[in-house]
Amino acid sequence: MEKDPMLRLRVFDLNCWAICYLSKRRQERISLIGDQLCREGFDLVLLQEIWSERDYSNLKAKLGGCCPFSHYFRSGVIGSGLCVFSKFPILDTLLYQYSLNGYPYMLQHGDWFCGKSVGLVIVRIAEITVNIYVTHLHAEYSREKDAYLPHRVVQAWELAQFIRHTAKAADVVLLGGDLNMHPGDVGIRLLRSWTGLRDAFTEAQRFEAVSSFTVECEELRTTTGTVPGLDIPYSDHEAVMAVLCIQRRQQTASVTIDAAMPALLEVLSEARTEVCMGLLAARQQRYSSGRMAVLAMLLLLLQAVGVLGMLGGVAAAQPFPALSVSLLAFFALAILLFAAGLHLFHSIEVKMLQGTEEQMEMAMRGLQEQPLHH
Amino acid sequence: MEKDPMLRLRVFDLNCWAICYLSKRRQERISLIGDQLCREGFDLVLLQEIWSERDYSNLKAKLGGCCPFSHYFRSGVIGSGLCVFSKFPILDTLLYQYSLNGYPYMLQHGDWFCGKSVGLVIVRIAEITVNIYVTHLHAEYSREKDAYLPHRVVQAWELAQFIRHTAKAADVVLLGGDLNMHPGDVGIRLLRSWTGLRDAFTEAQRFEAVSSFTVECEELRTTTGTVPGLDIPYSDHEAVMAVLCIQRRQQTASVTIDAAMPALLEVLSEARTEVCMGLLAARQQRYSSGRMAVLAMLLLLLQAVGVLGMLGGVAAAQPFPALSVSLLAFFALAILLFAAGLHLFHSIEVKMLQGTEEQMEMAMRGLQEQPLHH
Repeated sequence: MEKDPMLRLRVFDLNCWAICYLSKRRQERISLIGDQLCREGFDLVLLQEIWSERDYSNLKAKLGGCCPFSHYFRSGVIGSGLCVFSKFPILDTLLYQYSLNGYPYMLQHGDWFCGKSVGLVIVRIAEITVNIYVTHLHAEYSREKDAYLPHRVVQAWELAQFIRHTAKAADVVLLGGDLNMHPGDVGIRLLRSWTGLRDAFTEAQRFEAVSSFTVECEELRTTTGTVPGLDIPYSDHEAVMAVLCIQRRQQTASVTIDAAMPALLEVLSEARTEVCMGLLAARQQRYSSGRMAVLAMLLLLLQAVGVLGMLGGVAAAQPFPALSVSLLAFFALAILLFAAGLHLFHSIEVKMLQGTEEQMEMAMRGLQEQPLHH
Repeated sequence: MEKDPMLRLRVFDLNCWAICYLSKRRQERISLIGDQLCREGFDLVLLQEIWSERDYSNLKAKLGGCCPFSHYFRSGVIGSGLCVFSKFPILDTLLYQYSLNGYPYMLQHGDWFCGKSVGLVIVRIAEITVNIYVTHLHAEYSREKDAYLPHRVVQAWELAQFIRHTAKAADVVLLGGDLNMHPGDVGIRLLRSWTGLRDAFTEAQRFEAVSSFTVECEELRTTTGTVPGLDIPYSDHEAVMAVLCIQRRQQTASVTIDAAMPALLEVLSEARTEVCMGLLAARQQRYSSGRMAVLAMLLLLLQAVGVLGMLGGVAAAQPFPALSVSLLAFFALAILLFAAGLHLFHSIEVKMLQGTEEQMEMAMRGLQEQPLHH
């Protein structure tokens, strides 16, 4: 029996930290990244934080020789920052926006304004359909007191759901990007157990997806520090470079999801708890902002009564000067608008957390009721 | 050779017009809809514009007997308004939010605030996997001068892409909802030709999806006007009730997508033209709002200079009273904020239209390059 030919894929992944006006020596670094990619000749290049379309165009021009096919995922005002370069023709693409991504008023952690999506690119290599997912999840700013954990768990869940629903015709599934999680974190475990994906970094040489193909990681490298011969790094993140060997299975392996059931239920329950904690906090914040809005409205009403009284000549002595009355009204209005916006935002947050919690519960119920279903 | 058993599905679809405080006799109508659904005993019920979760809960309680499984799709502040009731267990769900849905400042056409999603519910009936999609696209307010056509085309495209990517493991695909289009409109033709779905209303008895099952529409009814014996209708829309017969194909039919290629290319090109027209308009609006913001900022600067001059005692005569200066500053600031918000919104619109245009172009290129690929 002849052995099926093996497909060797060279994959590159990097968060490029290419924020206009903010990232240091951006254009120089993008140019260096382009040079490095050209030299190495990767088959697939997955990039995050390419916020400027001009940077994408420059990379595209530079990579035209080795990766003639590419896709830039547009979304929101600033974009998703995600793009993929490929040696093989891109058949189709799809973008999915996460429902939650931090708080708009946390300006020091600007995640809300950007990158709340997962991009899918489908390529076909020698009769093998490969679904390539690239994403960038919400950052973790404090490991001890991680206020964004519920949002990141929701994103991990939505990412897992999106992969499950869109990968059914795929032979091989690759996920790259900046997940902002450690290998043992609940989001990563949820993602792994709910999709059947394996982590090329933590697992042994061989990591298998639930498919009729085996995927082996032949080589895994990362960049370390500065660009060789220069005093700057490629990015504020290190790149990951992997060589993957893809081969059709000799016999169809039995799906091992039944064996992994208790672990799956456990991680689902853990993730659901995190979402519930987030839900409690979001409800509290919705209440506080609503109360603030009501107080601001009362203040405005009081002032309106005062001004009407003044105009009516009731208080001819005019105890407050007009300028300070206007300023006070202005501030009350500003607070009202801010609190109302906040209330709206936290109302959305409550809905989304509730929806995710329900979906997770449905998934758990489904697993418990059909122990032999796969 | 024994003939495969036939599956008969009774499906109900209705835009329920259940907007809290706005829709007339809402609770009474929801109750009547529930009674009607109970009497008829449908297998699948697809509802739109169920904005209040209480209405959903009431329906759920009422339909517990005939449709014990259900899902309410949460999204945004108001929700998606979409829900599905099913006689068969729901295995999984997924919600996808459209990237464009009208303009936030068109308050008379409040679409922007609601219902910009498509919901997917997966059920398994006698070994047949059925993907049920329910959606509600942006309304058409004027057939002659339809300002929302580009947005509706983008939504039809995103809907088609979402179905294509998530339906690959499905045996049967059903799409119901309020598409706000006529059978011959470009959005409907795009949806039909890009997904292979057939319209139960316009086509003959038999309408086939690209799958190993045939789907026949045995019966198609709509409600007409008021509830029998009462002077109110169920909704401001009429319901659609269909009986579908699903049967495994005797022989695998050849996929007819190649024959339909010229038509597909034509409708893709037409849809792309609509999106390009929308792009031109969006760019124009982005420019106008940007200019307005700059003018408002100049006005504010002028006033600031004036106030500083006053405070510095340059104009001791104080030609303008403080109150009118504050009021003017207040209005300039309001205009600035409004124009900046508008500019941001139209920037997003430009990006999304551009992204869709590129995706459509890629689809056309793919079709032209691989004439025999299916």
